[in-house]
Amino acid sequence: MKSTESRLDVMNFLNEMAGRFPKAVSFASGRPAESFFDIERWIAEIPRFVRHQAEQSGASEADTLNVMAQYGRTSGIVNALIARQAGLDEGVACDASQVIVTAGCQEAISLCVTTLCQDPDDVLLVRSPSYIGITGVADLNGIGIEPFSSSTSDQLRDSLAATLADMDQRGKRVRALYLVPTFDNPTGTVIPRAEREEIIALCAARQIVILEDNPYGMYRFEGDPIPSMYELDTRSCVVYLGTYSKTVCPALRIGYAVVPHKLLGVEGGGAAFLDKLAQAKSFSTVNTSQITQAVLGGLLLAEEGSLQRLVAPSIDFYRANRDTMVACLAQAFAGMEERVSWNTPQGGFFLIVTLPFAFKAREAQMCASDYGVLAMPLSFFALNDAHDTCVRLAFSNGTPASIRTGVERFSRFVKDQLR
Amino acid sequence: MKSTESRLDVMNFLNEMAGRFPKAVSFASGRPAESFFDIERWIAEIPRFVRHQAEQSGASEADTLNVMAQYGRTSGIVNALIARQAGLDEGVACDASQVIVTAGCQEAISLCVTTLCQDPDDVLLVRSPSYIGITGVADLNGIGIEPFSSSTSDQLRDSLAATLADMDQRGKRVRALYLVPTFDNPTGTVIPRAEREEIIALCAARQIVILEDNPYGMYRFEGDPIPSMYELDTRSCVVYLGTYSKTVCPALRIGYAVVPHKLLGVEGGGAAFLDKLAQAKSFSTVNTSQITQAVLGGLLLAEEGSLQRLVAPSIDFYRANRDTMVACLAQAFAGMEERVSWNTPQGGFFLIVTLPFAFKAREAQMCASDYGVLAMPLSFFALNDAHDTCVRLAFSNGTPASIRTGVERFSRFVKDQLR
Repeated sequence: MKSTESRLDVMNFLNEMAGRFPKAVSFASGRPAESFFDIERWIAEIPRFVRHQAEQSGASEADTLNVMAQYGRTSGIVNALIARQAGLDEGVACDASQVIVTAGCQEAISLCVTTLCQDPDDVLLVRSPSYIGITGVADLNGIGIEPFSSSTSDQLRDSLAATLADMDQRGKRVRALYLVPTFDNPTGTVIPRAEREEIIALCAARQIVILEDNPYGMYRFEGDPIPSMYELDTRSCVVYLGTYSKTVCPALRIGYAVVPHKLLGVEGGGAAFLDKLAQAKSFSTVNTSQITQAVLGGLLLAEEGSLQRLVAPSIDFYRANRDTMVACLAQAFAGMEERVSWNTPQGGFFLIVTLPFAFKAREAQMCASDYGVLAMPLSFFALNDAHDTCVRLAFSNGTPASIRTGVERFSRFVKDQLR
Repeated sequence: MKSTESRLDVMNFLNEMAGRFPKAVSFASGRPAESFFDIERWIAEIPRFVRHQAEQSGASEADTLNVMAQYGRTSGIVNALIARQAGLDEGVACDASQVIVTAGCQEAISLCVTTLCQDPDDVLLVRSPSYIGITGVADLNGIGIEPFSSSTSDQLRDSLAATLADMDQRGKRVRALYLVPTFDNPTGTVIPRAEREEIIALCAARQIVILEDNPYGMYRFEGDPIPSMYELDTRSCVVYLGTYSKTVCPALRIGYAVVPHKLLGVEGGGAAFLDKLAQAKSFSTVNTSQITQAVLGGLLLAEEGSLQRLVAPSIDFYRANRDTMVACLAQAFAGMEERVSWNTPQGGFFLIVTLPFAFKAREAQMCASDYGVLAMPLSFFALNDAHDTCVRLAFSNGTPASIRTGVERFSRFVKDQLR
């Protein structure tokens, strides 16, 4: 397994590359497309939320505005609106009492992991490769982390069962399992329904909390939606993690966790866990900005609860970008299908290209400096060496023209390497 | 020393009291006065900051607005404006490269403490009594915490020297010392200049970082200002922690840390420490909301860099509140001067009343339920039993009328107890 230090350095490496080669086409960062941001209009919705709060409480709008500017409830003030949106759009039926609002979803991840894993033998399971935000939390807090799948194939259940048996043998107690089951970052893959149910059964039987992170779930381009693990969970072991960084914009810094009432089958277990999260949050960020909560609240009210209308144009945009990227890859690597391959995800922000040679920090640097394209080695997300020939390409934040240019540059690099 | 659990429960207790007795006069919470909030105007200053950023970068205002709504620099985007304000208003001469912007000052505290104290033998020193936010961070992260003063008197230096010797003997390594040197929370006291310099000398000699938290420094009602410890620091051991929760409003959730270039005398030590803080922040909240940073940035530009004009009316308000509280205490306890006493702080949000009997959770509850006034036992902030007869009264968030009513109720409680 790779060292903590090298994992933590990934972000530095990327930022440094982006800074040193500002003219390179970037497939590195999975940022949402800025062309759909309408931040002036969204901020102008604050008064709508203030009116709503005033109606609920009976206070005047002026007093409500002042209370909004003050310190506030640690768990948040837009919980009911978030519960409604998660129910309408993401298949997460819940009520406000199950929600804690956080300073971005990263804070929800951090609070959940550090609250669940407190003893030295407590372990967090993740897929390998995995989102850097989850491994970073574990590494920073000295929490043991174990990968439970060394390939992008779909035999997660067997790999999970084997890892659980191994943990038992080593006297480790698995407390949490982190997953992006729908349009995974970094792989773009979706865990099928049957496997979701099997993972839930395995975890519930061992009192393991599943942290289901779903930043990309609303970005399905085609195919039938698969129910969230939260929705499939009949055993109350799935905590759902959501964000508005992709559907609205990152600058809101609003994410949330939804906790089942009877977490791990314990009456009142959800409320007790939420209390612990709120206590930890009170010593980390006190409460999430009520200004940005009011922006989100006003927008959710304006959109009558659902964000589907708001995200519809960006879904079309990301689909077109994926189509452009896949078409460009097919054209660039025509006749090389046995050596260079990629997946065609049905949604999300990323796809993976598999090369016939290793693509690591050195190759990423060469791509940036000599070919003018930034691409992410999948090994940066991996907890082992199984993905050294894979590259993550983000298509979310480009244009058809930049994607064409970028793929052309990337293919020149690959062909030069193969010479 | 008191248990971790009991310290972490303090906030719950307070919230519960406030919820159960909503009609009680509250001297419990040190919130800023809401009557000075002008949140609509402040939000309307966002375009001023956007214009400023566009001028700096050469990008269009529309593009600048979109970049603002995007993910952004982990360390913040208003660092130069914060550096200017801290220099103009708080005696903290620094440049933008020394600043990290955080999701409230609590995040700065949490990042600094967890970054400095990583080994099991690393210890954090605090005064007792101390702000709950610092003890909470240590307790949550399993960091050893030691108090270095068991009285509110000003012999901090001797107490600190003795505690340092004790730590040496016990094989502990003191990594950081947390202080609110000016108008301390909870005691309202100010550390004199000579003692500030002695504390700096003691800490610098042992490579201990001083975390100088200064939320109340701009709220001086009278008397000559004392230079910040950051300003007095010739040894590069003071990290300055600031907040806009009191000067602007808590809903911004913006705080910051200023780190000396040569932290602990090491060339480049400040930059290396800031990198570690940013790395930890990237896994906690990614970056501070750029919407609220833009509100602050616009306001600081509108105010031409300094917040002195903005806070002037609230200084007058808090001074008048303190005068009312002290006058009411003098009237209520006339003839009882030998049994009931209080300090008259020259600034800040709090004063301390010392009673001839213990005032702890039971008494606080009785005050709330039977007398309709919420007051904070100083023991809630203490790491030992030396303050059981002291009560913290916040005068920041009241009116002359509520203060008169509250002190009258509090004095009835005290007199009934003494019967």
